[in-house]
Amino acid sequence: MSDTIEQLIIIGSGPAGHTAAIYAARAELKPLLFEGFMAGGVAAGGQLTTTTEVENFPGFPDGIGGPELMMRMREQSERYGARIKTETVTSVDLSKQPFTVSTDSTSFTARALIIATGATAKRLGLPGEETYWQKGISACAVCDGALPVFRNKPLIVIGGGDTACEEALFLSRFGSGITMLVRRDVMRASQTMQQRVASNPKIEILRETEAVGVIGEQFLTGVEVIDKTTRTRRVLPASGLFYAVGHAPNTAFLEGQLETDDDGYLITEPGSTTTTTPGVFAAGDVRDKVYRQAVTAAGTGCMAALEAERYLSAR
Amino acid sequence: MSDTIEQLIIIGSGPAGHTAAIYAARAELKPLLFEGFMAGGVAAGGQLTTTTEVENFPGFPDGIGGPELMMRMREQSERYGARIKTETVTSVDLSKQPFTVSTDSTSFTARALIIATGATAKRLGLPGEETYWQKGISACAVCDGALPVFRNKPLIVIGGGDTACEEALFLSRFGSGITMLVRRDVMRASQTMQQRVASNPKIEILRETEAVGVIGEQFLTGVEVIDKTTRTRRVLPASGLFYAVGHAPNTAFLEGQLETDDDGYLITEPGSTTTTTPGVFAAGDVRDKVYRQAVTAAGTGCMAALEAERYLSAR
Repeated sequence: MSDTIEQLIIIGSGPAGHTAAIYAARAELKPLLFEGFMAGGVAAGGQLTTTTEVENFPGFPDGIGGPELMMRMREQSERYGARIKTETVTSVDLSKQPFTVSTDSTSFTARALIIATGATAKRLGLPGEETYWQKGISACAVCDGALPVFRNKPLIVIGGGDTACEEALFLSRFGSGITMLVRRDVMRASQTMQQRVASNPKIEILRETEAVGVIGEQFLTGVEVIDKTTRTRRVLPASGLFYAVGHAPNTAFLEGQLETDDDGYLITEPGSTTTTTPGVFAAGDVRDKVYRQAVTAAGTGCMAALEAERYLSAR
Repeated sequence: MSDTIEQLIIIGSGPAGHTAAIYAARAELKPLLFEGFMAGGVAAGGQLTTTTEVENFPGFPDGIGGPELMMRMREQSERYGARIKTETVTSVDLSKQPFTVSTDSTSFTARALIIATGATAKRLGLPGEETYWQKGISACAVCDGALPVFRNKPLIVIGGGDTACEEALFLSRFGSGITMLVRRDVMRASQTMQQRVASNPKIEILRETEAVGVIGEQFLTGVEVIDKTTRTRRVLPASGLFYAVGHAPNTAFLEGQLETDDDGYLITEPGSTTTTTPGVFAAGDVRDKVYRQAVTAAGTGCMAALEAERYLSAR
């Protein structure tokens, strides 16, 4: 256990965590940031490390590699004095001040905490999935849909909820045709969204149909599906496969100490990053199931640092 | 008057406007962005064009010039298909669909609008102010306070509200001593904030004292003040002068068609960019008097584009 009481500990190393670190370091809070070691199943740097080219982060007209963007943010945090530990936080104690943050090897205490642990896209574990992840398979239509490889090509969306419908509608601007694979004979999506996809001539819905594998060469070329009523299998040609089967916010280490919504996302005061515990702030995808973009996460990281700074100077 | 009904018009060309344009263009909405011609008293690109080095925009570990950052965002918008007009919007008609957007020379119509016209820091018009703006004079302590030129130097804050107190407290981490100039004998700030500055040994408050001019060489060296009770003048040495006399959100062209708060900022649904008029979204500093950072503005620009896209695809 470290004897020093830190002013601010930041848990998470995506755009939210590092933007918080940049602002907090510049405010002389000397933040300690935990980037984790494959925490939430992804490398330090968060979900952007699982992407290739990022075209929509403002300031990079030629695009920038996701891992490179995160390396640059990390360098910027360190440059202004953030200290970074490559250890995964396994538990916290928010019941008393200073808060305790523990890893497998040791514990730290801090007056304020920023939780920026993100969310992890759920995967299906299909044969071939690992090979074609980000080589045709994506968990974010808004991020990747506009890439040239998907233009005027057949695309497949897996899922039957509102998000799946939104992604299909979004992709209908780019692909030659969109097929939605829905596991059951009914869809979870709202009636409005179901009507919207039904009335889009580019979208076809296959109910009671499940993906069982993906095939390809350098890049994805098709998805093998099974019709659950007839048990017949066939391969649908596809250049893109978009998972819309949900994300899991990375909150297990909190053991229920902060309030979450029904999907497990941390609840913050609207328009702010304050959680239900004073001194604990949440930024990025761990509290956002609507926008989920690198730049929105970065924005809330900045907000969290400014709020933590105000909280600390009021103590 | 143009006959084409645009899908989306974006008014404003700072980080919010251009991030909205990047996202909207990638969603094939073919946005039309008005960057204005010295609208709100600043050049196209917004308030960042009045700064020099930006150290806290994530992704740029070596810092980046404010004007250069905005040029890069502009290039990115255009690259994905945004069309940019260098004309100032003088009025809008939000009373019926499609909305009308007018400049001095012509009018356009659009199904959806994003207002991202920002806010302009109020200036005092002191002799020498123009010369030393961004050469010692700043309207944002959080943005500029950590710059090396202000470290261990005497700094002055003008203003007596909560923001002025916050800026003084923030700057006390960097400067050798902070002097607050308060025009009246009482401060507008809350009791809590007044107590906090009073108990900070680095902060001195001069009441009934007004700045009447600034002096310097290459860079600001002092501020001439007048004691309003004795009418005596003197020069206070200062390497930094921070204006905390408020910002004016650039909303005059809206002529009251959207709801604002008491300070004139557009009201949006908390945690969203929707205004009181369906189809009209607001992003950036025109709806934010709390955080006011480039990256938070960019984040809400992204949100506005995603919300506009959903609004348009639901029509």
